[in-house]
Amino acid sequence: MSTGRSVILIVFDGLGDRPNPALGNRTALQAAYRPNLNRMARLGITGLLDTVSPGVVAGSDTSHLSLLGYDPRRYYTGRGPFEAMGLGIEVRPGDIAFRANFATREGGTITDRRAGRISSGTEELSEVLNREIDGVEFIFRPGVEHRGALVMRGEGLSDALSDSDPHDVGKPPREVVALDKGAERTASVLNRYLKEAREALERHPVNVRRRSEGKGPANELLVRGAGRVPDLPPFRQVHGFSGACIAGIPMITGICALLGMEVIKVEGATGSLYTNVDGKIAAAVEASRRHRFVIVNIKGTDVAGHDRNPVEKKGVIERADRAMGRILEVADRAVIAVTGDHSTPCSTGEHSGDPVPLLVFSPDGRRDSVMSFDEVSVARGALRLRGTELIEYLKQAAGLSEKYGA
Amino acid sequence: MSTGRSVILIVFDGLGDRPNPALGNRTALQAAYRPNLNRMARLGITGLLDTVSPGVVAGSDTSHLSLLGYDPRRYYTGRGPFEAMGLGIEVRPGDIAFRANFATREGGTITDRRAGRISSGTEELSEVLNREIDGVEFIFRPGVEHRGALVMRGEGLSDALSDSDPHDVGKPPREVVALDKGAERTASVLNRYLKEAREALERHPVNVRRRSEGKGPANELLVRGAGRVPDLPPFRQVHGFSGACIAGIPMITGICALLGMEVIKVEGATGSLYTNVDGKIAAAVEASRRHRFVIVNIKGTDVAGHDRNPVEKKGVIERADRAMGRILEVADRAVIAVTGDHSTPCSTGEHSGDPVPLLVFSPDGRRDSVMSFDEVSVARGALRLRGTELIEYLKQAAGLSEKYGA
Repeated sequence: MSTGRSVILIVFDGLGDRPNPALGNRTALQAAYRPNLNRMARLGITGLLDTVSPGVVAGSDTSHLSLLGYDPRRYYTGRGPFEAMGLGIEVRPGDIAFRANFATREGGTITDRRAGRISSGTEELSEVLNREIDGVEFIFRPGVEHRGALVMRGEGLSDALSDSDPHDVGKPPREVVALDKGAERTASVLNRYLKEAREALERHPVNVRRRSEGKGPANELLVRGAGRVPDLPPFRQVHGFSGACIAGIPMITGICALLGMEVIKVEGATGSLYTNVDGKIAAAVEASRRHRFVIVNIKGTDVAGHDRNPVEKKGVIERADRAMGRILEVADRAVIAVTGDHSTPCSTGEHSGDPVPLLVFSPDGRRDSVMSFDEVSVARGALRLRGTELIEYLKQAAGLSEKYGA
Repeated sequence: MSTGRSVILIVFDGLGDRPNPALGNRTALQAAYRPNLNRMARLGITGLLDTVSPGVVAGSDTSHLSLLGYDPRRYYTGRGPFEAMGLGIEVRPGDIAFRANFATREGGTITDRRAGRISSGTEELSEVLNREIDGVEFIFRPGVEHRGALVMRGEGLSDALSDSDPHDVGKPPREVVALDKGAERTASVLNRYLKEAREALERHPVNVRRRSEGKGPANELLVRGAGRVPDLPPFRQVHGFSGACIAGIPMITGICALLGMEVIKVEGATGSLYTNVDGKIAAAVEASRRHRFVIVNIKGTDVAGHDRNPVEKKGVIERADRAMGRILEVADRAVIAVTGDHSTPCSTGEHSGDPVPLLVFSPDGRRDSVMSFDEVSVARGALRLRGTELIEYLKQAAGLSEKYGA
C-alpha cells in the first residue's frame, strides 16, 4: 500500500440521543461506562456531524452513502433500491426496485393495505413471486410483517413508473402507468407480473388457510416508489484506495458491495443488540492491514433506540467500548473515528435530525479540549462537519489526500 | 473613503498544527509567548476556519483565492498559472501557463526527468528560453532545482493541450496535442517552441560543461498542466472597495496583482523565517489609511512547518506577536483578523486539511469566551467559517457590507 495510514470508521447506528429521564436526563452515551471512547476523545479531536445536512432526518441508507463520500442528493434514487438491499437482494446497477406490501383484496378493491399485518407465511408466499416474464427477471424478498421488496432485472428498464398501491383502502389496485415514453415496456411487463402474482397468491395454500381461519388473505402485491439502482462510481475510483465493510445488516453491506468494497463476514455479527462486537472490531483491525479504509456498523444502538430502551442502548455502547480496547493497539498505523449515522432518540423511538457525536483519534493528530465522548461534551469540540466532509477530513488525517493547489 | 472601518487580515502561512512532542505535545502556537494575539482573542471573537472546505488539503494559491473572496472551485485553473506567479512571472488573463521541468534526453528518449536535480546554471539556461514565435511570446522562469514555469502570451491561445512530459523515463518527449479544435494553433506554436528550445539547450555552454563533468545535460524542457490564467473580476468590483497586499512570496503578490490590488513592497520582507515582520505590520497600518482591505502574508510559519521545526515555528509566531503591538494602535479604525491559509503540521512537514485558528478583533465587536489564540482554545469559540465566508464576516464587522433585504 502507498504511504499514509489506514482509517477505521466505527459507526454506531442511531447513536445520537436526547436526555432520558430513566438515565437522570442523560443520554445513553452520557450514562455509559466508556473508558476507551473517553480516552480517544481526550487525546483526539471531537465535534458534531450532520451526516446529510443539519436538521435532515437521515436514514441509514442516505447517511451511509454520505459517510462513504457519496452525496445522497446526487446518488440516492429512493428507498426502493436500498430497501431491496436491506432485505438481502443483491441488486445491480440498472435494476428497478420497489417497496412492496402484501395487501388484502376483496372483489376488485383493497380492503386492507397490510393484509392484517401478516406475521407468518410470507416466505412461502414469496416463492410464487420469483418469476420471469418476457426476459425480465422478478425477484421478491419479504421483510417485516406485510413489507417486502421487488426487483426487476433486464435490459432497458425504466423507473419512470406510477405505483400500483392506491395508498388507500376501498380502491382497486392501480394499473402501473409509464410516466414517460421510455417506460412503456417496463410498465407493461410489470402489469403482467402483478396480474400473474395476483392469481398465484389467490390460490396459494397460505391464503387458503388464512381464509379458513377468518383472516384476510395476502392476495395482492402492491408496489410503490420505483427506483433505479444507481450506477455508483467504485469506492476505489472515488478515493484512490480500497475499502472494506463490516456490518450485520444487509442494507449497509449491500451499499458497500455495490461500491466494490470488500464485505467481510464476521461470525455472530447479527445487527442485533447482542451482536459479536468483539469479532467485528478484531476483523476491522485485521482488515486495516489490507485496506486504507474500513467501516464498521454497530446496529444495536439503533435497535435499542427504536425499542425506546435507553438502558439497552447504554449496554450496547458499553459492550462496544470494551471491545474497542483492541483497536487502540493499531493507533500508530490507523486513524480511528467513531460516530453515528443519525440519531435515534429513545424518547421518540424514531430517527431524528439531531447531529451525531464524532471523535477522530490518532496519537499525533489534532486535538481539542474535550475530555469525554457524548453529545453534550463534543458540542464544545473543534469539528462541525456535514455530509461527505467527514471522509475528506479522515483522509487528510491519515495522510491519504491529494493537495488542492500548490 | 466611505464610512466604515478598514480590515487588516494577517495570514500566517501554514499556521495550523498538531501536537508536537518537542513542545510537550502542544502546537507551536500554543507554546509561543503571544501576549498580543491572546489579548485580541480575549477581547475579540474566535473560531476555526476551513479555507476551502473541511478536510481539503489546500495550497496557498487556492486558500488565498478563498480568503480574498474568490471561490477556488470556480476560479482556480490549475497549478500552471499559480506556479508561474510563484516564480515571479507577471501573468495576465488569457496567458497559458505550464509547470515545466528541465530533463535529460539521450538520443530520442528521456533518461532523467529532473536532469540530475540540476542545482546551478538554470538562470543561464533560461536566457535562451525566452523567445517569440509567430506572434506568441514565451516567458520562462526557473524555480527550485529542475523546476520552472513557462507562459505563452498572445492572441487566441487555448489551454486544451496535452503534456509534452511523458511522465516516465525511457520514453521520448511527447508531441503536444490539441485536445480540441480551438487549440490547434497553440499546440503547433508550442511544438515549434519546444523544438527550438531543445536545439538551444543542446548547445548551451552550461550543458557543454555538464557533459564534460560527466553530468546529464538539461537539454529538454518538459511541460505539463496547461492552464489559462483566469480572468478574475477585480477586487474592487467584487467588494466595492480597494485592497492592498503585503507578502514576501511572489505567488501571493501575483494573485493580488491579478486582482488589481496594490502590491506593497516592504524592505526585508523575504517570505523566509527572518522576514521583516515589523516592516510588514507597519506597512499594513499605513496602507489601511488608503485601503479598506489589507492582507498580510507571513510565510515563516509555513517554512518552519515544511522544515518540521516546531521551535522555529514558535519563534516566527513570537516575533510576529511582538510586531503586532503596533497594530493595536489602529484598532479604533480597523478590524483586525488573524488566521492561517492552511495547516502545515511540523510533525508531517506537509500541508494538512486541519482547520486553522481564527480571531477577529475590534474593540466594540462581538466577543466570545475564548481567552487565548491557539488551535485548541479557539475550537470553543463562536466562529466556524469556510471558504469565502471569512471576508464576508470581516466586511460586516467593519461596516462595509450591503444589507441583503430590507
